[in-house]
Amino acid sequence: MKDLGPLPLSPDFAEHPAGPGITTATPEVEGITVTFADGASHHFNRYYLRENEVADGVINPITRESEFLIESLPDDLTVGGVEIDGNGALVVTWGPDGHASRHHPGWLHAIATGLWRPGAALPARESWDAASMPEPVSFDGPAVLENDDALTEWLIATEKYGLARLRGLPDIDGTVQRVAERIGTVRSSNFGFLFSVESKPDPDSNAYRSVALPPHTDLGSREVQPGLQLLHCRENTCSDGWSTMVDGMRLSEHMRDTDPDAYEALTTLNWVTSNRHRTSDYRWSGPIIDLDADGVFAEMRNTSFLRAEPDMDAADVPRAYAALRKLMGFASDPAFVCRYPFATGDLVIFDNRRVLHGRDSFNPQGGVRRLQGCYLDRDELYSRLRVLAREARSKG
Amino acid sequence: MKDLGPLPLSPDFAEHPAGPGITTATPEVEGITVTFADGASHHFNRYYLRENEVADGVINPITRESEFLIESLPDDLTVGGVEIDGNGALVVTWGPDGHASRHHPGWLHAIATGLWRPGAALPARESWDAASMPEPVSFDGPAVLENDDALTEWLIATEKYGLARLRGLPDIDGTVQRVAERIGTVRSSNFGFLFSVESKPDPDSNAYRSVALPPHTDLGSREVQPGLQLLHCRENTCSDGWSTMVDGMRLSEHMRDTDPDAYEALTTLNWVTSNRHRTSDYRWSGPIIDLDADGVFAEMRNTSFLRAEPDMDAADVPRAYAALRKLMGFASDPAFVCRYPFATGDLVIFDNRRVLHGRDSFNPQGGVRRLQGCYLDRDELYSRLRVLAREARSKG
Repeated sequence: MKDLGPLPLSPDFAEHPAGPGITTATPEVEGITVTFADGASHHFNRYYLRENEVADGVINPITRESEFLIESLPDDLTVGGVEIDGNGALVVTWGPDGHASRHHPGWLHAIATGLWRPGAALPARESWDAASMPEPVSFDGPAVLENDDALTEWLIATEKYGLARLRGLPDIDGTVQRVAERIGTVRSSNFGFLFSVESKPDPDSNAYRSVALPPHTDLGSREVQPGLQLLHCRENTCSDGWSTMVDGMRLSEHMRDTDPDAYEALTTLNWVTSNRHRTSDYRWSGPIIDLDADGVFAEMRNTSFLRAEPDMDAADVPRAYAALRKLMGFASDPAFVCRYPFATGDLVIFDNRRVLHGRDSFNPQGGVRRLQGCYLDRDELYSRLRVLAREARSKG
Repeated sequence: MKDLGPLPLSPDFAEHPAGPGITTATPEVEGITVTFADGASHHFNRYYLRENEVADGVINPITRESEFLIESLPDDLTVGGVEIDGNGALVVTWGPDGHASRHHPGWLHAIATGLWRPGAALPARESWDAASMPEPVSFDGPAVLENDDALTEWLIATEKYGLARLRGLPDIDGTVQRVAERIGTVRSSNFGFLFSVESKPDPDSNAYRSVALPPHTDLGSREVQPGLQLLHCRENTCSDGWSTMVDGMRLSEHMRDTDPDAYEALTTLNWVTSNRHRTSDYRWSGPIIDLDADGVFAEMRNTSFLRAEPDMDAADVPRAYAALRKLMGFASDPAFVCRYPFATGDLVIFDNRRVLHGRDSFNPQGGVRRLQGCYLDRDELYSRLRVLAREARSKG
């Protein structure tokens, strides 16, 4: 077929390489099966191909958002003809209207090989305990602020373990925001945009006292708990008040493997978590351990100091309390707890929906302990990892 | 029993009235059954009562957050004795440690009558179509800014219909933020804290052009779509570009009642929604219509211009497209569409996870059209409605 010019744009911003090239494109009733030189093969539905043309009135070439109304296509949309043009693009002519669309072969290959999947650019999670995680995996803070390769390494560890530390950051107000915005948009809450964790005279949370905090997730009273928490230790001259981290994913596996009845109670019986405040009243009902549709650990909702009513049949309440007490016993068992001093200049990031954080009590007269923190949703981490991966891919 | 002084604090900030009073409190193996003078009755689990005492070391009297470790209680926790004191409080003595706890009778009554449920202060949703909602239900903007009763009425309509309008607001930058903060914390996104909807020369979304926008939800590429969107019309001198609103809950009911097979496809087959941007890459996979565990409409995820790949078995793709095309046909059917001019000084709030919004195309040379908007999560609306309800209740 004749040369139709440079390859067309793709419906996303990934700048796909041309890929291995299309070998065959076979029209069928419901679409086109395309095979590639590396053996990949995929059936593209007719409506999918037609609505994914990059052209005015379909996928807008500037915004890459669709202007097309899928309901405007007829029921008898048919593939009239299929060709590979001189630059390797797929060219389809459509019945009954005779329209022709042209598609980027690298984009088609990316779809065929599953790069569209939300999880494609994300590392697999690995659970841990005190033996395998004696202290958080550490990275150089200033490098992460400046360099995308350093950022990528830190974020891969963050998703893999749900916990990673930066070191060597300066005692400058808003540093935690600078680090967070390397990932994405900060999530504000009723505690503000950034929050300072210091002992306060009229506290509206136990976090702002000097008491011990048991292992917990933050903001369990919200429909979606903050996905990531960043805490920057601007100054810590207290010798006590060590930080604790426990992998809720590992706790969940341990309950599943050692006490299936308790695990069933933790994954199916709902509790209300309710914040306690004069001017807000967030409440959410859900299980302590939430599994996804495949039964895989998705998150833990365990803000123990905000846990309120058991939201279940009265007959289930005794076993719900028994299971919870057992879980919380393991959550403070040294075999599961990563316990370490929080040093000046450190910043920890953790998946607040997976990892329980806490601290020992401290003597507020024994030194200064100033932290600054903020939240982001999990989406922000995933988006950044995808952008970093597609930039690495487009470089070769 | 002797007078033990004023009623104890309750574990929340609701300032419960004393209530009808306790008539009987009967110790049982797993807890205490309490009956009240109005006939209400409730079984309080032993662990629940014990961890809900307001006292130093249990529920902190200042923060009302728990300092207590539920796992510190013994397996053989027993109710040693139960009394009603001279002020009507429930006094429990516990075995084996002999500890005594005291509980507010109004709080106990609130628990017995279900006021703890997350949905207790929320109105039931009512679905609508073009006939029942020819234009958004309207309220006085300045009154809502100043007066809690006006705020309550507006927010009840917002939850009931997923759509409500304020009128008479000034053309002042940030007015939409002032209104939003009457509810709660604004949710930032990659489009900013507040966003301006105007025709722009280098748009990063179709919203910032003058093209028609089909009925859609915003940010379907996020794990949780923004729950509420507020749009303030600061100035509109265009005669075209009318606003459209469609109740996704009604669309869902209509599909359920008229085409169960399509409804099944819409509620069970997942699609990836993917934003298109040079610096972000949000993706989420979920059904177009999401039902809760009871099969009740929970939300619609339908950002048609960001919809990407069908995330399902290849054999399901044809029926998924057929169901979606049918749904989108109804979404533009005048029988379902509330269509109205967006007037200067108006502000609409809508549940972005329920109501699809859109607009007709407009001639950007025909006048000025300046909107300012922001998002909040559903949590914020629910929290504000609960606080307003508890304040009304404590006033009697």
